[in-house]
Amino acid sequence: SDLDAGRQKATSCAGCHGVAGISNNPAWPNLAGQKEQYLQIQLLAFRDGLRSNPIMNGMAKTLTDADIDNLAAYFASLKRE
Amino acid sequence: SDLDAGRQKATSCAGCHGVAGISNNPAWPNLAGQKEQYLQIQLLAFRDGLRSNPIMNGMAKTLTDADIDNLAAYFASLKRE
Repeated sequence: SDLDAGRQKATSCAGCHGVAGISNNPAWPNLAGQKEQYLQIQLLAFRDGLRSNPIMNGMAKTLTDADIDNLAAYFASLKRE
Repeated sequence: SDLDAGRQKATSCAGCHGVAGISNNPAWPNLAGQKEQYLQIQLLAFRDGLRSNPIMNGMAKTLTDADIDNLAAYFASLKRE
């Protein structure tokens, strides 16, 4: 996966999940330092409708497999401070 | 919520999510330091079938609302090291 591409793509996630992957809202999960494969599985599930959340289904709809790999790698790489 | 009760209840979660809430398997999420309300929402969703995962639907089936509150508070309280 490509961390820089992940970082780029993640700019559209920062609004809810925080610039450093620590979210601004108690109902939205922190992503920093989460397990890479878990993040991948959830993004695929949101994209393919296996997991339903109005916001995330919309956000994930246009992600390619490569985007998902890169995003998962990027957020997993962030320190969990 | 009751952190001690949450710690007690969490003994049955440690097998997958790790004693300190950092999981042993790349496909299972870390819970330490996750957002309390997010954890609550997910446990309720697993219990009530709004989110499907064979393992977690089973684990959550018998949890009471108090268990869920206590578990969410407990894992949220763990350091995110």
